Amino acid sequence: MSGIRSRLLHLGVEALLFLDVINIRYLIGFAGGEGALLIGQGQAILLVDGRYVTQARQEVERVEIIEYEDKVEGIVTAILNDGSKTVGFEAQAISYDTYARLKESLKGLKLKPISDEIDTIRAIKDEREIELLRRAAEISSGALASVRDLIREGVRERDIALDLEFKMRHNGAEQVSFATIVASGTNTALPHAIPSTRKIENGDVVVIDCGAIYEGYHSDETCTFVVGQANARQKEVYRLVREAHDRALDTVRAGVPCSEIDRVARACIEEGGLGAYFSHGTGHGVGLDVHEAPRIAAKSKGILEAGMVVTIEPGVYIPGLWGVRIEDTVLVKEDGCEVLTKISKDFRILI
Amino acid sequence: MSGIRSRLLHLGVEALLFLDVINIRYLIGFAGGEGALLIGQGQAILLVDGRYVTQARQEVERVEIIEYEDKVEGIVTAILNDGSKTVGFEAQAISYDTYARLKESLKGLKLKPISDEIDTIRAIKDEREIELLRRAAEISSGALASVRDLIREGVRERDIALDLEFKMRHNGAEQVSFATIVASGTNTALPHAIPSTRKIENGDVVVIDCGAIYEGYHSDETCTFVVGQANARQKEVYRLVREAHDRALDTVRAGVPCSEIDRVARACIEEGGLGAYFSHGTGHGVGLDVHEAPRIAAKSKGILEAGMVVTIEPGVYIPGLWGVRIEDTVLVKEDGCEVLTKISKDFRILI
Repeated sequence: MSGIRSRLLHLGVEALLFLDVINIRYLIGFAGGEGALLIGQGQAILLVDGRYVTQARQEVERVEIIEYEDKVEGIVTAILNDGSKTVGFEAQAISYDTYARLKESLKGLKLKPISDEIDTIRAIKDEREIELLRRAAEISSGALASVRDLIREGVRERDIALDLEFKMRHNGAEQVSFATIVASGTNTALPHAIPSTRKIENGDVVVIDCGAIYEGYHSDETCTFVVGQANARQKEVYRLVREAHDRALDTVRAGVPCSEIDRVARACIEEGGLGAYFSHGTGHGVGLDVHEAPRIAAKSKGILEAGMVVTIEPGVYIPGLWGVRIEDTVLVKEDGCEVLTKISKDFRILI
Repeated sequence: MSGIRSRLLHLGVEALLFLDVINIRYLIGFAGGEGALLIGQGQAILLVDGRYVTQARQEVERVEIIEYEDKVEGIVTAILNDGSKTVGFEAQAISYDTYARLKESLKGLKLKPISDEIDTIRAIKDEREIELLRRAAEISSGALASVRDLIREGVRERDIALDLEFKMRHNGAEQVSFATIVASGTNTALPHAIPSTRKIENGDVVVIDCGAIYEGYHSDETCTFVVGQANARQKEVYRLVREAHDRALDTVRAGVPCSEIDRVARACIEEGGLGAYFSHGTGHGVGLDVHEAPRIAAKSKGILEAGMVVTIEPGVYIPGLWGVRIEDTVLVKEDGCEVLTKISKDFRILI
């Protein structure tokens, strides 16, 4: 944390206040669901409510733990005791309401919004983090491979999602990264479909998007299959999305702008005449959060660096018809990337 | 929504901006994971990114749907087109960063923080909502009852949690309300323990806290058991927490201050000399969110009203030893309450 402290204090503040529990977990290892961390002049202080005092004592070292009844009042007291006159806070993690209450109670102090410094630090993973991300990807890929026999005519989307989540958890996931998407037929035209009671039919496209959490770290992978038999249009769109995915993967290496990865994938789909149906960015960072820095999108300003872990997930969604998305999570290296997710993205008809 | 509009516009604003997706779901039925809703002079506008356009068209009626690339820019354009000069926003759901960007782009307009108006409206459930909450409670209680045989010596906490979540989902839950808590032995001294690989031992206290989501609505219930044999202290603490739970339940009815419910439960545990170990509030509202208004705590200012659905969940956590929590979710009525959760809270030794 001392390294983080020195980097963050370059921001021209005497103290930093964190309310984002994932940032707090990243900085000091506290994995509770609510709290505040003040890194100031004196010892770092973790503020928690009564539910988390014992857990904090078990998980956190060299940080003072203070219990609060009212969170904002607890923060105010901690800041006043610390004596800092300029306090940085996470502009995206703090609500307007909390900000307004702090400002009211801390007249004479300067509260300075810090935008994405910690996100930038978190984006680059160390060896331990990479190992956990690798393990998370193995768990979800393994589970997805093991439910493939279930993806057949007559089975409900919801039952596949449930079995897949059960297998991820059984294989060691502490939780799933997000509500698993299992979409079939026209439901695949929604990028974020919720598994329904729809039964898979012969000739359906099936999109499965899932991830596992292992010691706080997430995985994220999407496979698209066709069940029974595929028509020419399905094969053609799959080939195009696969080409966009592969070209983007080939472009990933340290030093490349994130926007360039998106441009390469998007250009490929535009060449195929389906640019209007690629309705989201090409990817995002993955770590303690399933969506974190950097964004891989047209307007992204970031540059890929070695140690970043990002998804590459182009998709095409034809309204009323069906959609295809192909997603891997990859580790950025100096000279390319390592694909952490394990399922082959070759076109596959499940029979 | 028109009823809501008229109530909210009493706040002295011409338009209202919502970013909390649960509030948006409550108001117009859109169940996507991200978006913004503007209720202004003209037609209500739902702003979504490309992932949610098709879903929004399926779920939402009499609301204009606009796709954005950048959320804040999309909101700014919608507000300017609407022409309202005073715009209320959710002070707790909007980040400082989003607020600052809106303020910068909307010079000349007045942005007015609205604190908890919508929470107050959401706190009182209509017949349909009560039916969904009832169904959610049936699902989780049924699942919890069905895993009771698994709660025995040698079984890992994590395996019970997984089986319980699987059964809730299998019985119709679209998701679980929160990560299920299964804690045994000393882990029960943490109110929010994460299920571990610890195996249950003879004489253990076991705390299980779980809930199901049914059509967006949550349930929340906690049972505490003892495995094999119970010692006198365990029986005594259980009796005390049960007494606090029962007295609080007996106090619930329309017109009673929320703080009074907490006082009754807390006084009971204080009489037993364990007040220092009751480290959280007595309960909270349950609805589209698992924690929503009203809070049942010492400093709560709310008054119970018929149609509110709240948890009653006193607990005692003895550091290093074990803990007991007993929780039901209840519907507030004019003359008392109806317990929606189904498991008997009688003391039970599982053999």
